[in-house]
Formats: sequence, structure tokens, C-alpha cells
Amino acid sequence: MTITAAVPAPSPALTARRPRHDARPTAAQRVLAILDVFDQEHLVLTLSEISRRSGLTLSTTHRLVGELRSWGALDRSDDGRYAIGMRVLELGSLEPKGLRLRTAALPYLGDLHAALATDVNLSVRDGTDVIYVESLRSRHGAPVLTRLGGRWPLHATATGQILLAHAEPELQERVLHGPLKRYTAKTCVDPDALRRTLADVRRSGFTIVDESITAGAVAIAVPVRGAGDRVVSAVGATIRRGSCPPESVLPALSTTARAISRALGSPSARARARG
Amino acid sequence: MTITAAVPAPSPALTARRPRHDARPTAAQRVLAILDVFDQEHLVLTLSEISRRSGLTLSTTHRLVGELRSWGALDRSDDGRYAIGMRVLELGSLEPKGLRLRTAALPYLGDLHAALATDVNLSVRDGTDVIYVESLRSRHGAPVLTRLGGRWPLHATATGQILLAHAEPELQERVLHGPLKRYTAKTCVDPDALRRTLADVRRSGFTIVDESITAGAVAIAVPVRGAGDRVVSAVGATIRRGSCPPESVLPALSTTARAISRALGSPSARARARG
Repeated sequence: MTITAAVPAPSPALTARRPRHDARPTAAQRVLAILDVFDQEHLVLTLSEISRRSGLTLSTTHRLVGELRSWGALDRSDDGRYAIGMRVLELGSLEPKGLRLRTAALPYLGDLHAALATDVNLSVRDGTDVIYVESLRSRHGAPVLTRLGGRWPLHATATGQILLAHAEPELQERVLHGPLKRYTAKTCVDPDALRRTLADVRRSGFTIVDESITAGAVAIAVPVRGAGDRVVSAVGATIRRGSCPPESVLPALSTTARAISRALGSPSARARARG
Repeated sequence: MTITAAVPAPSPALTARRPRHDARPTAAQRVLAILDVFDQEHLVLTLSEISRRSGLTLSTTHRLVGELRSWGALDRSDDGRYAIGMRVLELGSLEPKGLRLRTAALPYLGDLHAALATDVNLSVRDGTDVIYVESLRSRHGAPVLTRLGGRWPLHATATGQILLAHAEPELQERVLHGPLKRYTAKTCVDPDALRRTLADVRRSGFTIVDESITAGAVAIAVPVRGAGDRVVSAVGATIRRGSCPPESVLPALSTTARAISRALGSPSARARARG
């Protein structure tokens, strides 16, 4: 690989993470800035691309990439480019919320997937985003972008709306007052409309989101509860628009959510099982 | 949280990763040593436990944990302990081999899971280990330890034996000459027996591994091929011992492996589809 002159360009990764008053990133921030350059649109990158996107000099990038590679955080492909390594996949599987949820939920989620023959997913909230901790795809599903580890803003997704509706009021206000990203003409980006939607979600116990991110896809989601009946997750399904009435998948979704909630120790799901 | 005196104990994490000639770890190695302390048996740790297990002083640990936490690599629970954060789960999902395989394989793996009603998984090789890049559990499955992101030595698992049998000869020799860890009385730890097993696997195209890691569980696996018909992955199922003849799941496993291989561009799987 040819090492060309370093280009210390301004970096979105570093500037976003670095405290404003500190012009020089710490050693840890430099390491994390390297990892930060990888995303869904940038799975495999050359050393110069990593340097440019991280804002680090080529020599620093070269040294840190070497250290990250020997640890397994980065992997080098045959063509000399770099990607996230297996060690990160392995480490990510130790995230306890996702691990505990997947363990409890996967059998039921598998049943749901078999029953509906469409894409189903299990999500948790991370700040103002939703993360898919499990995603079972179907060949018959809609052409959607859900995938394990995928991150989307709460307001635009069905599971996200469930989690937002049950989040603490401060977080709801933060989302409602923040910029609401528009993906399609149907994405709910009006704070007042979103506030009404969240009230509806709390009252009805489900949400139906029509072509909010992808044309042709309708997403339906219901809450999953844990100890103290707190909403800890949401289970969702995505169907091709027009393939069936979205409401028709609700009984299967609710059954699954109830089974997972019971496995997680939700008192009301246990009571219903006894009663 | 009370910060007590630092205990700079020798650390398995640091000593294993650090070059022997260098007494002082680099900044990047210190960051990675923090992440290294988390594993399946240590999902949630206090600051002092992280310090002790990483071999870093408590003040260094405190500073780095803070930086890792603000980036999202670590998460702080309500009781003040730390765990791997959602950002790592998200980042790990970008690992290209796993991502590409999951995308191609999940629909077929879901069908297999529904058809067999037992645990099925998809694995790739990482050095001398096998990593589960997908694992669909069943309530009817054997009490096994497969899970997404799980790592096991090649010789002891069914998918691992498939991947080892088709690995380059140098790697096979390295595994055959290295220590072969024993999990149960039935784990294959004899190099000659393992060499014969690998030859059988190449000839027959499958492997059956009986109670190699867990009592009561039998694992069956077949290869998944990609471009150039190279074995890139293995698909496996685990059944309760005695529930059915292990060979009876082979047709379903082979069908699934063939469908995934075709999706990955395997010439022979494409030829069979046409012929």
C-alpha cells in the first residue's frame, strides 16, 4: 500500500465527539475516531480514506489501524482495505440489554416470523434512536432497511414511536423540540402531530407507521414490558403495503410481545397468564 | 462511586495483547485493554473490577471508561457498574463478512428454523475459532451455548470442523499441533482422530458432533460456498440427543446451505439450480 501525504482535513467524526474547548483529541478519542469512520455506507475503506474521514494524519492513522488490527477490531481484506473485525461483532454481542432480550425473545420472535412470513424485529431505545437488537428477514417481506444493529431516529419508526411514547417526558420533549428528520413525504415531522400520535400509542398499545422511511412498507409495533411493567423494548413487523390490512398482524404481534414480557418478568403479563 | 487505591496487578488482558519487549502499553492498547475485560462471564463490572482485570491504575481506568462511555462503547447501569454499550453492537453489525452472510442467509435460515423447530446457526471462521454470525434458537432445542457473536475453538464444534476441514493446510496443521481443549469426555482432542474426521468431512460434505461441548446435544453442520466455490461459512443445527437420528436433518441442512451458497454466487450451486 502506498502511503501518500497526510491530509489533516476537518473531520465530522472528531469534531462531533471532541469537547469544543479542546483543540487536540485525546489518545482514546483518536482510537475511537478511527472506528467512527465506518458506517453502513462505508463498510470497507482504504488507509487514506480512514485518515481523511477521521481527520487524523496518515502516519497516526497507519499506527492506530495497525494496533486496532492486531487486536481484531479491524480486519484487512485481500485488496488491502480495512473493515470492522469479528472481535467487534463478538464484543457487541455482550451488550447486556440486547443479549438478555435476544435470549428471552428469540424463540417467540422465531414463531412470529414463521407465522407472519414477513420481516419481524426487536428494538430498544438508545438515546433518541432506536436500535434493532434482532431482525429476522423474510423473502416475502417489504424492501426495508431494518437489520441487526441498525439505528434509526425514534419518531420515524414503528418500534421507535412505541419506545418514545413510553420514554420519560424530558426525552419526549427533547425529541419533539429537536429537528425531526424527513425520509419520505409521509414521515411524521410535525411536533404537534407526533405528540398526538404518542398519546394515541399510549392509549391503544400499538402503532402503525405507513411508508415513513421506505415507500411500499408499512410497519406495526407493540411494546414489550419487563420488571415493574416498564416498557423495555418493542416488537415490530413490516409488511408490503397492500398485502394485508396492517391491523391483521396485531394479534400475533401482541401474543409475541406478551410471551416475551412474561419471560422478562413483567407482572401484568404473568397475571394475564394465570388469570 | 468511591475511588479506592489503584491496584496495578498483572493483567491477562494486557500481557496477552502487548508485545513482550515493550513494558509500557500504548494509549491504544490501554483503550482496548478496557474493552478486553468484558466477556460472557463478565458482562457488567465495577470500575475497580475493570481496573483490576485490565491491569490499569484506577485513575487511568476512570479516565478511559469516561471517554469510552461518552462515545457509547460502554454503558453505565443504574447501580453504577459498566457494560459494553449499544454503539459496539451497532459497530459490530458492520463487520462485512457477517453482514453480507446474514443478509443473504437469514430468509433461508429462518425457513430451516421453522422446518426443523430446533436451534440453527450460521458460522464463519476467525483464526482458529468459529464465530456464530447468526443463531436462531428454539424452545424445543438442546440446552446449548450457541449465541450470536459466540466464539468457540474449531475442533470442538460442528460448524468449526466444517470450516477447519476446508481451511488452508497451514491453519489445519496449526490447530492439529496446538492444544485441543477438552469440554466433555467426547470432545475430539486426539490430533490423529481429528485429522481422520477432517478427511471424512471433506469426503462426505457434513459432520455430526456428539456431545462435544454440551451433554445431551448433537450438532450437525454442512458447508456454505461462495465465489469460486470456496467454503466461506457453515450452517449447523443442534438437536437434543435421542430426539431424532442426526442424519435425518441433513436434507434440510443441505437444501438451506445450497440456497445460501447460490445467493452468495457459488458456481456449483448455480449450476445445480439450472441443471
